[in-house]
Amino acid sequence: MATLTVTFFPSGNQAKVVKGTSVLDAARAAGVLLETPCGGEGRCGKCLVRGGVGLDAPATTEKELLGAAKLESGWRLACQARVIGDARITVPPTTLSHEHRIMIEGLDREIAIEPHVRKVALELPSPAGDDPRADLRRVIDALGDVLPSGRLQSLRNLPGILRDSGFHITAVVSGNRLIAVENGDTMDSIYGLAVDIGTTTIVAYLCHLPTGRVLATASDLNSQTQYGDDVISRIRAATSSRDDLADMAQVVKVVINDLIERVCHNADVTPNAIYDIAIVGNTCMTHLLLGVSPEGLGTIPFVPSFRGPQTVSARALGIGVHPDARVYIAPSIGGFVGADTLGLILSTEIDLMDGTNVAVDIGTNGEIVVARNGELLASSTAAGPAFEGARIRHGMRAATGAIDEVSIADDVQCHVIGEGYARGVCGSGLVDAIAELVRVGIIDESGRMAHPGEAKGVPEQVESRVIENQNGVEFVLVPEEISFGGEAVTLTAQDVRETQMAKAAIYGGMNLMLEHIGATSDEVRELLLAGAFGNYIRQESAVAIGLIPSLPNSRIRPVGNAAGVGAKMILLSDSQRRRAENIALQVRHIDLSETEDFYERFADAMALRPLPREH
Amino acid sequence: MATLTVTFFPSGNQAKVVKGTSVLDAARAAGVLLETPCGGEGRCGKCLVRGGVGLDAPATTEKELLGAAKLESGWRLACQARVIGDARITVPPTTLSHEHRIMIEGLDREIAIEPHVRKVALELPSPAGDDPRADLRRVIDALGDVLPSGRLQSLRNLPGILRDSGFHITAVVSGNRLIAVENGDTMDSIYGLAVDIGTTTIVAYLCHLPTGRVLATASDLNSQTQYGDDVISRIRAATSSRDDLADMAQVVKVVINDLIERVCHNADVTPNAIYDIAIVGNTCMTHLLLGVSPEGLGTIPFVPSFRGPQTVSARALGIGVHPDARVYIAPSIGGFVGADTLGLILSTEIDLMDGTNVAVDIGTNGEIVVARNGELLASSTAAGPAFEGARIRHGMRAATGAIDEVSIADDVQCHVIGEGYARGVCGSGLVDAIAELVRVGIIDESGRMAHPGEAKGVPEQVESRVIENQNGVEFVLVPEEISFGGEAVTLTAQDVRETQMAKAAIYGGMNLMLEHIGATSDEVRELLLAGAFGNYIRQESAVAIGLIPSLPNSRIRPVGNAAGVGAKMILLSDSQRRRAENIALQVRHIDLSETEDFYERFADAMALRPLPREH
Repeated sequence: MATLTVTFFPSGNQAKVVKGTSVLDAARAAGVLLETPCGGEGRCGKCLVRGGVGLDAPATTEKELLGAAKLESGWRLACQARVIGDARITVPPTTLSHEHRIMIEGLDREIAIEPHVRKVALELPSPAGDDPRADLRRVIDALGDVLPSGRLQSLRNLPGILRDSGFHITAVVSGNRLIAVENGDTMDSIYGLAVDIGTTTIVAYLCHLPTGRVLATASDLNSQTQYGDDVISRIRAATSSRDDLADMAQVVKVVINDLIERVCHNADVTPNAIYDIAIVGNTCMTHLLLGVSPEGLGTIPFVPSFRGPQTVSARALGIGVHPDARVYIAPSIGGFVGADTLGLILSTEIDLMDGTNVAVDIGTNGEIVVARNGELLASSTAAGPAFEGARIRHGMRAATGAIDEVSIADDVQCHVIGEGYARGVCGSGLVDAIAELVRVGIIDESGRMAHPGEAKGVPEQVESRVIENQNGVEFVLVPEEISFGGEAVTLTAQDVRETQMAKAAIYGGMNLMLEHIGATSDEVRELLLAGAFGNYIRQESAVAIGLIPSLPNSRIRPVGNAAGVGAKMILLSDSQRRRAENIALQVRHIDLSETEDFYERFADAMALRPLPREH
Repeated sequence: MATLTVTFFPSGNQAKVVKGTSVLDAARAAGVLLETPCGGEGRCGKCLVRGGVGLDAPATTEKELLGAAKLESGWRLACQARVIGDARITVPPTTLSHEHRIMIEGLDREIAIEPHVRKVALELPSPAGDDPRADLRRVIDALGDVLPSGRLQSLRNLPGILRDSGFHITAVVSGNRLIAVENGDTMDSIYGLAVDIGTTTIVAYLCHLPTGRVLATASDLNSQTQYGDDVISRIRAATSSRDDLADMAQVVKVVINDLIERVCHNADVTPNAIYDIAIVGNTCMTHLLLGVSPEGLGTIPFVPSFRGPQTVSARALGIGVHPDARVYIAPSIGGFVGADTLGLILSTEIDLMDGTNVAVDIGTNGEIVVARNGELLASSTAAGPAFEGARIRHGMRAATGAIDEVSIADDVQCHVIGEGYARGVCGSGLVDAIAELVRVGIIDESGRMAHPGEAKGVPEQVESRVIENQNGVEFVLVPEEISFGGEAVTLTAQDVRETQMAKAAIYGGMNLMLEHIGATSDEVRELLLAGAFGNYIRQESAVAIGLIPSLPNSRIRPVGNAAGVGAKMILLSDSQRRRAENIALQVRHIDLSETEDFYERFADAMALRPLPREH
């Protein structure tokens, strides 16, 4: 009996079956696992799929369970519908078995695994006198709706691989493009990389594409920091020197290639088996990665050179994975609001929430998203890197030796990451320290630090930590005796100023955006805090110094590295990739610095007290 | 009054006009010149264009001249139709003024100039607070139906050029893709290159795209000949060594780059202004150019690795023109029948001729096309390079010093190219010499050369030229006294054998193909001879030795370098490019060596006499 071909979408997996096979069995044969709570007996109605041509007429069971309207729209039950011709079946994510879904760390729901890049094993007929098709045509014909990559390089190995393998190959397909072929059946060996390029830190996640499992994670500092620790200094460097632009493009790739080596080593995977890379980053970072001058970002009205998604080959970009792998750089929203903010929206699903909600990613920049019943505003504040430890006298990232918690009773209690000597203070320690010093009266609401002996009613031990020297007033968090390197870890008056400016930029911006969307901060149902800082910060302290609005704890939720989660979602799911592209077109970008009221709001938000005042 | 935009296709030229302007005036403003024999008075009906939206209702004049059916299909007279909104007008080639058409050397009719690559000058608004579009979007929006190139490199210069030029740029568009931008208005500076890569010779034509003029031509030997003088030896070399494959890809590009330098120098054009390259060549040549192994061509059933058209950037290929120029490699027909044969069909228009017609390109391979009322068969014979002088003891190309004509009366008369000393004999001289020696009886029909004193009734002077030495029998065409370098130019018995095999492959193949299409050689209306050889050969001699069928002279026509003409047509006209792609899909490829009767036909065609015998 002639075999029929059933193709399942979006995976593109295929099965050859005989006439009369159920779609459920065909799906199994194609490696597409469906939910069948009732065991495929036509009782539960869960194995919903969509198809038309090549299927038999609906059985009575289907009519009863689905109703006429659904049947007319092409919905069928996989366990009941039978294949009677070549068929193309669409499987909605909800019908996929849990084995084909995954929970990504930091995301509290499952997503369906349907990567943009997939493999198809092919046993091709050898050329013959009556079948003299060109090599490329032979492969393309076997793949159905797939086109050649159109790139020169991917053609070069084809003749050799076909003949060495006896025409048994595995095709690698990206979207609807054939990008590579491998010798023999290598279906399981296909990996992807999600990358979050931060201004300060770059994180890479190695994923096994067929299962969506994250096999290894690695992170490192973005070595572009040698050109400046914030995006403004890097834009300036790139604009004034072509060499600096080229060098910044180069160094970020060196870091990424190093991360690739590390994750591949840890997971025992060859980099050559990585066929897809999804990258998120702020607008400046994606420009610099591609070697595109960000000069438009350097002057009002801060226009990027490109905003849409970009796809380049790993070869063209110089990334050390399979040279024909596609590197997908997620779209930006505008100006300084990049693909990382898109990741924040994707992973929090703030676009789908009811009421007014706010998501904030406090990294080197502070990105803010305000959403109200699907309407989205996004903005970036030049908060500066204070919360990542930069421009703070003893500031450092949240690593071993960092003071990450500070509380004051009779004396100052500091918790040090790793429990050893203190080396400095990280963002959460900084916020804690300032909140506690305001509470005990050593710093006033305007941010002024009391001189030695000036503060009243402060425990003596605490009071004695206020010192004055040629730099001005300082507060000793950890004295030199128990500090690493013998230098005291202090908080300076200037540190307080930097922190005030950073938090005022975030709070003031958020406030203005809420107004833009027609809401007040007490209407905020959920405040989602992304980034490492969002995870570690003590919410009470953040509220106390007016960094975030004074909301009940239950309405404040840390969401982890949201940009990284977004990158993983884009890597593992083609529909999330499309969702990201749609969101990028929908979000309204607010340029805060262009907004009339911003400096007033900024000034109002400088005060170190819970905001808004009425709470 | 608000201005309206009128876009003309296929050129994409635009004009901004006020409401009520005639389409004819709008076309003039857009630089699209139309035929108007009656001076635009609505009398001749020649300025036919097609459009709908944005035009007024047809006037009485149009109704009378065009009729209801044409008007309903959207046809209008440009001189009568008025613009009342943004409009898109299609101009058929026949309506274009002669200034927009060109006669290509070797083609006896005009083609419309509508290159695949064009320039559009743009005066863009600068970014503003209420217009913060990304740089790329700003350019794309101004271009209408054009997409970004999708290639990384083309983004890199964009921000700088926009700002340096005050946002007055010229966009370079290839098909519907933006491939480059230039500072200021550079509309006139856009060039293209047509290249014919032969097994032995490479020819390049530099064309000014807006006018279609050929500004310079240069040719050189294909230096791949160091790996063998025919395609079979090159396939063998490429298959057995990756280094040889890479080296052959490299050396052909060195020749092309050298030709580019020469044509650009001669025409005083910067290579950087070349934005399009159209290449034809046989299947093996296009594989080697792209560095793709031709190994499938080395074994039965001789399948290529790719057959369809390929487009790569000049950067990726390493060709020394503008790096974002597109290199278009025309499609192949199959096996050994390449894009050069497609050029033969394109330029002879044999596909459009009535009755049975044959086109033959005798170069290093012999390509044959047989057409009957639009049905097309094509084949390649392994004729070998005898007619280009290879494998012939004193063979050489048709250059200075080559004997190109031979006639025998009381003695032998040789014409030497350049009128100086003889260096060797080229294809046409070879055919002449053999035809004449058969006529006087020194060579018999089987190809055997008489020994000294053996031939009867031959003039004494001629008879004395037959000599015998350790190599066998030879005939002295030019004695050593008047030869360059003091060595006699002779024709050997082996030379006769080589020529017989080459001509038998061509004649036998043609004969078999005619039979395939259901015709005989005396039904052939026109025999079109392409290639240098086709131009210089004496038809009587070619008929006399049975290289071509014995047809009246009036039915045999030399068509010049048909492959090169085809390349120029593909370069200058997008519709010819599409026509080429359609032809490539329609032509039936006959593999002569797989055809049962071929060796019998080949043997029959060895005889040195007019063929078929009955003529």
